[in-house]
This record gives sequence, structure tokens and C-alpha cells, in this order.
Amino acid sequence: MTSPDPAWLPASAFRPLGSRRVRVVGDGPLVTTVRDEVAAAVAGHGGALVEDGPVDLELVCAGGDGSEAFTVERAGTTAVRATGGAGLLYGFHHVVRLGEAAFGADFPVEHHAPRRPVRMLDHWDNTEVHPVMGQVERGYAGDSIFYADGRVRDDLSRVAAYARLLGSIGVNRVGLNNVNVHRAEARLLTDLLPDVVRLAEVFRPHGIRVHLSVSFAAPVTLGGLPTADPLDPGVRRWWDRATADVYAAIPDFGGYVVKADSEGQPGPFAYGRTHADGANLLARALAPFGGTVFWRAFVYDHHQDWRDRTTDRARAAHDHFAPLDGAFDPNVVLQVKYGPMDFQAREPVSPVIAAMPRTRLAVELQVTQEYTGQQKHVCHLVPQWREILRFPLAGDAVGDLVDGVVAVSNVGRDRFWTGHPLAQANLFGFGRLAWDDRLAPEAVLDEWIGLTFDDPAVREPLHELMDGSWHTYERYTAPLGVGFMVNPAGHYGPAVDGYEYSRWGTYHFADRDGVGVDRTRATGTGFTGQYPAPWRDVYESLETCPDELLLFFHHVPYDHVLRSGTTVVQHIYDTHFAGVEEVARMVEVWAELEGRVPDAVHARVEELLAEQLRCATEWRDQVNTYFFRKSGVPDARGRRIH
Amino acid sequence: MTSPDPAWLPASAFRPLGSRRVRVVGDGPLVTTVRDEVAAAVAGHGGALVEDGPVDLELVCAGGDGSEAFTVERAGTTAVRATGGAGLLYGFHHVVRLGEAAFGADFPVEHHAPRRPVRMLDHWDNTEVHPVMGQVERGYAGDSIFYADGRVRDDLSRVAAYARLLGSIGVNRVGLNNVNVHRAEARLLTDLLPDVVRLAEVFRPHGIRVHLSVSFAAPVTLGGLPTADPLDPGVRRWWDRATADVYAAIPDFGGYVVKADSEGQPGPFAYGRTHADGANLLARALAPFGGTVFWRAFVYDHHQDWRDRTTDRARAAHDHFAPLDGAFDPNVVLQVKYGPMDFQAREPVSPVIAAMPRTRLAVELQVTQEYTGQQKHVCHLVPQWREILRFPLAGDAVGDLVDGVVAVSNVGRDRFWTGHPLAQANLFGFGRLAWDDRLAPEAVLDEWIGLTFDDPAVREPLHELMDGSWHTYERYTAPLGVGFMVNPAGHYGPAVDGYEYSRWGTYHFADRDGVGVDRTRATGTGFTGQYPAPWRDVYESLETCPDELLLFFHHVPYDHVLRSGTTVVQHIYDTHFAGVEEVARMVEVWAELEGRVPDAVHARVEELLAEQLRCATEWRDQVNTYFFRKSGVPDARGRRIH
Repeated sequence: MTSPDPAWLPASAFRPLGSRRVRVVGDGPLVTTVRDEVAAAVAGHGGALVEDGPVDLELVCAGGDGSEAFTVERAGTTAVRATGGAGLLYGFHHVVRLGEAAFGADFPVEHHAPRRPVRMLDHWDNTEVHPVMGQVERGYAGDSIFYADGRVRDDLSRVAAYARLLGSIGVNRVGLNNVNVHRAEARLLTDLLPDVVRLAEVFRPHGIRVHLSVSFAAPVTLGGLPTADPLDPGVRRWWDRATADVYAAIPDFGGYVVKADSEGQPGPFAYGRTHADGANLLARALAPFGGTVFWRAFVYDHHQDWRDRTTDRARAAHDHFAPLDGAFDPNVVLQVKYGPMDFQAREPVSPVIAAMPRTRLAVELQVTQEYTGQQKHVCHLVPQWREILRFPLAGDAVGDLVDGVVAVSNVGRDRFWTGHPLAQANLFGFGRLAWDDRLAPEAVLDEWIGLTFDDPAVREPLHELMDGSWHTYERYTAPLGVGFMVNPAGHYGPAVDGYEYSRWGTYHFADRDGVGVDRTRATGTGFTGQYPAPWRDVYESLETCPDELLLFFHHVPYDHVLRSGTTVVQHIYDTHFAGVEEVARMVEVWAELEGRVPDAVHARVEELLAEQLRCATEWRDQVNTYFFRKSGVPDARGRRIH
Repeated sequence: MTSPDPAWLPASAFRPLGSRRVRVVGDGPLVTTVRDEVAAAVAGHGGALVEDGPVDLELVCAGGDGSEAFTVERAGTTAVRATGGAGLLYGFHHVVRLGEAAFGADFPVEHHAPRRPVRMLDHWDNTEVHPVMGQVERGYAGDSIFYADGRVRDDLSRVAAYARLLGSIGVNRVGLNNVNVHRAEARLLTDLLPDVVRLAEVFRPHGIRVHLSVSFAAPVTLGGLPTADPLDPGVRRWWDRATADVYAAIPDFGGYVVKADSEGQPGPFAYGRTHADGANLLARALAPFGGTVFWRAFVYDHHQDWRDRTTDRARAAHDHFAPLDGAFDPNVVLQVKYGPMDFQAREPVSPVIAAMPRTRLAVELQVTQEYTGQQKHVCHLVPQWREILRFPLAGDAVGDLVDGVVAVSNVGRDRFWTGHPLAQANLFGFGRLAWDDRLAPEAVLDEWIGLTFDDPAVREPLHELMDGSWHTYERYTAPLGVGFMVNPAGHYGPAVDGYEYSRWGTYHFADRDGVGVDRTRATGTGFTGQYPAPWRDVYESLETCPDELLLFFHHVPYDHVLRSGTTVVQHIYDTHFAGVEEVARMVEVWAELEGRVPDAVHARVEELLAEQLRCATEWRDQVNTYFFRKSGVPDARGRRIH
């Protein structure tokens, strides 16, 4: 294999630091990582790694307390100080991101610390290639970088490069396998454990702990027990022993990730037990070793009858979990998808996040673009995540209500890691926002551009191309927060009625008079009642509900006038025409960048933008035609609707 | 493997003949087959195979001219006479079907001969299992009976049983592999030829010649030539040699089946040549050996733009092939699907069949139930085929305009051959109608029931259950001939808009005002003009177009009044409610048959009827809801529409 794309850590990104005299002080594996980074940087750019004498940069780790914080200041010399190796690593990369600015005017001490302890990427990787889904479920960047032919790969150099990238942005945990745990992958917990040890060794020097997704039925399927009942003493012993074996091999193992009683995965319901019973079973096995169980709240009826308008999938997570607040052990983290449905381009924030003050929570984002263009479309999601994390759900913002931010990764064996080279920015931005969600997404984007592309002339046009791309994607896909309208087979491209008569609970209820889902308390499913004030009322009322969520909360006639002043149907037409025009503009902007970015990157993005333009046009035409046929209302501006 | 289901040749079917004294006179392999059949029958039922003395039945083959005709008479003794082994075989099975009636009152000489020389089953079998499609494309009865692991199976006993079944109903040709010829299957023509020889040996004693589907690109992909241009001398030499090799191994090889320039298969268009050029290339390689090429007319633009209402897939076969009438060699048979689209439950008969008087034609039916319930639903198609074959398309009926009837088979390794045990009746009925399309489908059904089930009390209820099942299926699926509305992924179950915005040319154009495809000359695509009188005018006019094809030819408002007196939308509601009620009645009738049919058959059909009822209900509700949402017209009878 050729060496993978350097992503946001190309040699050029280390030029400012690498051309200086640098001292690294301290001991321990992460300090060694930093020292090796500095050595490589100065070797490439003419600086020096020195032990004595005057320096431009001093990186000092005074201790080994595991802290992730660091300080940075400049008073003639630039100095990074930390009390733990992770803090030093993060401080080092902070200086890399600063570039020349780190060595300019003096600045006083800045204290940097992550806003939350858990910053995690889940990998939906299977050890084998599935004939339909491929190897990485919802992966759009080739096969797994971890596994081949049922085992962990022999050559882990690519994993090492990935671990370095994650360490540079502060990610500190990874889930190594798909939350849908198939039979082959269940064995990672047992006889394939030596393989997991090898992965843990690759992640460890970058401050990253590994997790395994486990099957709740493992005591039966792997252990041969007659039951997986969480209250059964034999089951408890099985988990205790399995967990002890893991920690004997991987002392800093992070813990488990569990998708239970969800979309066919086994769980405690089979034994009449609660999710708390299930989660605490694993938590107690992990507790002696400092491990954590991440228990997913993505639980709903996936055999819903579309005829039944009283059942509302959006309600499910809150209905299931809110009553269990306080029942989870302290080393359980309830992992809640950001919205009540499933990673749509637009959803309201999940009310579960406000409903469980006595439970540790993590919010789950999706870096892999399952419903947002599958890394064929430029859809820069960092602004979406910023909006979610800073949303004032319960006085506090979402980011302040959770202990962790978790996301599904978007990498694979693709030469650019992420299929679409520009999708690297989502991975980068995830790490940056997970560290500190008060960062401005525009600034994070510029950081990524500046690190990734050496030519400073790239920044402005590429920023223009990417910054609004999430809104562009939203404009040409499902309107006004109603969601879905995607092809059920694969979730790529439009199918307005694709999920309308399905068992998945994802409907828009469009008829000749109107569209949308009535989730009000007054006349609908009552989902608005799951929100705290003021949102329970903001969303309830047609007058106050934000336009972009209108059809998520209300069924309205096509001539309903939005807060923006246009009717619903005209808004649909307008945004879909606009979205395609914006993609056409992206194509133009990218053409200008030829010669300013690596040729291979330019060619790949050019090809994918052509596909994005084709697909966006298809979205526009299908959605517009669908609503024109249903409503009979012509476009007020007389544009062609087929 | 346990021995397969005897289908319509259980031991009991041979009781009348097997309990008699029988003489078989003649020589040759097919006479041997008959003699062996008689020997087995008398051994099981107490009769005798004798050479001299008085007999109840005499089967005489006086010669070996290859004739398929026979006479039968009774004057004290029943006598079957033929001048060829095939005729004797068919006469023998005629007597089996007559049962005791063959040995009752005397009757004068009856002359029996097939109505056409070609009666063929195509198998869309691949040598390997495809991860998505399975091994048999559009197969709903398990893996291929022919192939395993890329080769012809070692144990061909099941193929022998199948060949016997086909021989008993007069099928005389089989295509051995999928018309979509993948790389692995292309090699059946070359290095896997010894495997094909083994299959030919199994079919030969039943009067059946084998055919191979070949790839038009074979000279390139297998032969390493730079071109597959049909006018290139090197290409011609390649086909000549390959064909000579086949005939050296299989002297009675039937010939080739070709899907060219269709749905991605290679063909002559790549070289600027016509289908006639392509077909004649192969025909001339086959001619010295008496072989035939079956060239499929299923050619259309499968990358159609749904926005373009001027392109009409229904026109495609006629547009492509009618101008070529007279250009095909005499040993080319143009194989035309019965309708202009693709094996829907209801289509008008293809106008191509009337348009090529100087070309040998075969009409292609589909025994495998791709769009008609996939052998999960009882959908007895023999009445449909009878209607097609007797349709007076051009003065003559379709059956009189063609040299052959070809169909896609429905068998696999399933214990009942066809998945649904009652789908055996479609295979049986295909053979019977291919032999003589003047047979009444009700009588053919009773023949099948009588042969298959020993208990005479089965006949009446099972006849009731099956006879109208095609119309029942039509009632609960796409209305009034408009077709499709199936799930694009797999073609099973409803998706009203599933193909509406696709590239496949299969649309219904439903909007808030009406539904249907305008294929008139006056205002539509002009497809009606491809028909001869009177059909070009019958279909053109709203007043004369048959209700069941109305939406195939016309786009009409929902309140359009049908010839039946109801409006279009009310017809949709009525037929969909009725269809489900009819399936519910099927369930009741089948329940009465417990104990009268083999338990395993009863259990399988019971299970499948439950699925049929579920699926029919889903069709009803999705179609009714779809049109209620679009039209806003309530059901006149106040039934619940969701």
C-alpha cells in the first residue's frame, strides 16, 4: 500500500515549529510521542531538538497525572506546560495549529483543557466484508483500516497514522467494532483478544483508549450459558471473568459499547429486565478496572405499522430512558443520538439530553455521512454540530449537559481516508468541537484548511465552498425538518415516498392538502411535551416553531405562510432551486483551485462534485415534482417543474 | 438430498396405466425412456410389460423420423402410434393424463401434434451464488439444480427428475444459463463444455435439446480478440470454431440464447451494427449443424430520464426490431416478451408480434413469478398465458403468429421444486399451453390437480382457490394495467412510487388530478400506432379501450367513469378491498384441505398463504392510501382508508 494521505498533518504543517529550536522535558510514553514528533519536524525543516541552551519552544511535562490540560504562553520563548503526557501532546498540536503565530508577539498564559472527558469515535467496522453492506457499516471510504479476513490486519501502519491524527485533535477513545455485533465480531472479546491487544498498543501512544462493542447475548452465544439475564449470577460471573481477561491483556481498556434491544440486537428486554439492569451488569464488571459502558439510547419499534399514527418513533428514546434516570451506575454513559430520529441533516435536539440529570450522558454525532451525502457530497457538518452542542436545551447548552461527545467515524482504506478529501474536515472538526464546542466552526474550518493545504490562496475559496455546504445539502434534500425521503436501499439519493409506507417510523404524511408530522400535544403525538420549557411551547405553537423544524412538529397546508414570509410549497421550490445553484457554484469555485491543491485531490473532488451536482439536481426535480403533483400549486417564479 | 417432490408425476398418477398389460414397440433412446416408464409403472401397480399376447395398451413407434406427433385410439385396446420417439413419449404421457378414461369406452383415432415446434424453458441460473441475487436470477425456489461452486453438479439425479417432468408436458428445449451472462458462465461455451455435455445427456432421453446463453462479447472476453464486431472475419471464425466445438461434443445441441444491447449486456450496437447483423453472425455459425439462435427483443433505454415524457419504453422493442423484419436468417428466432414492458400481471400484447411477418418469432412468458408474487403468492398464470396466446392480434392469434413459446422457468433446489407447491401448476400449464394453446386453462388446471393429488375431493376446492388467483393478484396490486408499483429492490411487495422517478421507464404519472400513461397518437407517445387495426384504434379511444388496460394507454382524471360504470378511483378502492377478501377466502379453502393433501404440502402452502394475506393487505392499504392522499376522494362505501 502507498502511504496514506497525510490529511491535516502534512510536512508543511510542521514548518514553523520544525524550523525552530525546541526542547522537550519529561518522561513517559506520550512525552516520547511528542519528542518523536518534534524530532521528525526539525529533521524536515532545519530546526533542532535540544536538551540545553536557548530555545524557541519548550514543551514541559511536569509529572504523569493523566491530565489532558496544558498551558501555553510566550515570553520570548514559547512554552507549553502540562502535568500529564496527554496534556503535553495536546499542547504540542496546539502549537502546530498556531503555526508562525506561536512564535510571534508575546502572549500571556492561556489555560487549555477539554470541555469534557469523553471524546470518542465509534467505528462500525466488521472483521469481514459483508456482501451487501461492505465491511464498514455506513462506511463510504473503503474497507476497514483495522481488519482483514476476520482478523486484525498484520500491517497496522495505517492504524498508527490514524491514531496520530486523532491524537492531534484530542480524541481519546475509540470503539473498535460495529455496534451491530455479528457472530464473527463477538469473538473480539474472547479468542480474538490478542488481536485487540495489538490495536490497543497502536492507539496508546496517542492518548487513546480502545473500546469493544459487545453483544448482550454473549454469555449465550460465546459462553454457552442458557441465559443472558442480567440478574442471573452465572451471567454476572461470565461478564466478570471476560472483563477481567480483557483488562489482564489491556490494562487501560476503555470499556464496552452496547446497542441493546435495538433494531434486532439482543438486550435485557428478553428477560423482562430494564436497560438499567442491562447496563449496570456490564458496568459492575468494568468498575473494578476503571472501565465505562457506553449504552446507546437508540431504542425504538423498528416494526412500526405506518397506518398507526399514534406511535411516534421520535418519542421512543425518551419514553424508554427518561423513567430510568438515576438507575444507572456511575460508570454507565448513556449515549444519545443528537436528534430523536436518526442522524438527519436537520432534527431538533433530543429531549433525552435534558431529561436525565442524574445520568451520565454522551451525545452521539455522525461524522460518516450516512444521510448527508455519503462522502460523495461536500457537506461540512461542523456548523451543525456546533449548533447542536451550543443549543440551550435546558438553560444549559447540550454541550454542558453531557460528559461526552461520541461520533461514528468516516475513515476507511481509501487513499484520502474519507473517500471525499474534503470530508477530512468533518473528522478534524469533530475532534476540535469535542474538545471545545465554543470554538467557532468557521475558525475550525480555517484551521483545517491552513494545516492541510500549503498554499494560502486556497483558504478563501475553499472556505466559501465548504462553510455553507450543510445548509446547501439541507436545501436540496428533505424540506423543513421533515427528514428522510431517501432511498431505503442505502440512504443515498432521493425517494420522497421511500420510507412513507415502511416499518421504520419515518413518515412525512404528504397528501394533496399538506405535509408534515403533527407531534404537538394538542392534536398530535405529544412529542413536544418531552421538552423542557421554553421548547415544549416554542415547538408546540405554529407561531413560534422555527421554520427549519416546522414539518418535524406540524402538519400544515401547502399554503401555510412560514415565518420567512413564503408559503411552504413555494419554500420547497425555492430552496431546491437554490440548493442546486449553490452546488453549481461549488463546482466553479473548485475549478479555480486547480494547481493550488495536489492534483490527485483536485481530480477526486472534481469528480465527486460532478456527482453531487447530478444528485442534487435529482433531489430538486424529484422533490419539486412530487409536491407539484400533490399540491397542484405552480412555482410562483415560473421555473420548470417536471 | 432427499428425493424431490414427484410434482405431477407421483406413483398414483400411473395407477390406471400401471395396472394394465402394456406393450411397447420400437427402438431408440426415447422409446427406451417410454419402455422404462412403463416398466416402472407396471411394477408399482400390478400390470405387466409384455412382448406378445393381448394387451390393454399398445405404444408403437414405427420409425425414427423425429416427429413429435402421435395418434391415440381405442378399439378394445388402447393404441398410441408415433413415427418418432418424441411422439411416442408425448403419447405415453397423454395416456397417463387420461387416466382411467384411456381404458373406458372406445374412441376413434385422434391426431395430436404440437401447435409449434419450439417449446422452451429458459433458466436464469448462474454457476455460482451471487451475494445479492442468489444463484438463480429472479429465482424463488432455492439454488440452481444445475450448478454448484462454478461447475455442473456431480449428482444430476435431480436434473434427471426435472427433465422427465418437462418431457411429460412436451417441453423440448431448455436454456441452461442466465441470459445475463457473467464472466464465470461465459466459460460454459468453452472450457466448461464437458460439463454442459453431462447436462445434455440428462435431457436427451426426454426429447429435450439444450441451449446456452452466450455473451456477444465472447470473442473478446474469452477469445482475446480485439473486437466482437459481427462483420469482422476473425470474429466470424471465432464463433464458427466455438460452435463447431460445441457440436462435436453435443451433436443435438439446440443453439444459443442472446440478450444483446440490453440492460448493459454487450451487443452489435458497439460496432455500429444492427441486431440482424448480430443475430445472423451466430445463426451462420449454427446453421451447418441445425442450430438456432434465440435473439431477445427486450431492448430499451435503461437509463431513461423520468422527466422526459416523450420517451416511452413500451415503444422500444417495436422501434428497434420492426424495421429489421426480413433481415434475419431463417434459423434466427426473435424472442419477444409477451408485453411491451416486462412481465407485468397485466400488459397489452406486444405489437412486435404482429409487425414482423418475415421473421421467425417466439413469445416469451415468465413462469417464475418475478412480478406476480414470487412464488409466495398463489398466482395461477395459465389463464393469463391462454389470453395472450389466443389474443387476436392481427387476424391470427398470437399463438398462430409465433414458431415458439419460451418461458423463464421457476424451479430450484427447493423440496417442492418451485417454492410454492401450487406454483408447480404454472410449470405444468406452461408446457401444456405451449403444446396447444387452444386447451382450456380450467381443464389444464384440473389435469394438474388430478395428477398431483390422489384424493379426488381436492379438485373442486383447489380449483376454486387457484383458478381466479391471477385476477385476484391483479386486483390487489397495480390498477388498470398501469403496472409496476413494486419495490425496486427485489420486485416484491408494494411501492407505489418505487419506480416513479427512476431510470427504468416505468411510470404511472399520478398527480392530484389523475393517473396513467398517455400512449395515444393524438396526445401521447404514439405507442398505440404500433398496433395493427383494430387495436390501434381500440386502444386509442377512451370509449373502446378495455378497462383493464386503461391506465396503460391513457392518463385520466380520478373521476373518469370506466366502462364498468365506476370511477377510476372508486375502482381502485373496490378492487383492492376485493382482492384481499379473495385471499382471505383462499386461506379458508386451503384450511379445508388439511388431511387431503400431503402434510408437508399443506403446511408450506398454509404458511405462504399467511404471507400472501399479509402482503395483499399491505398492497391494498398502500395503494388505497396513496390514491386517497392524492385524490382526496373518499371511498363511496365508507371503508377505512388509512
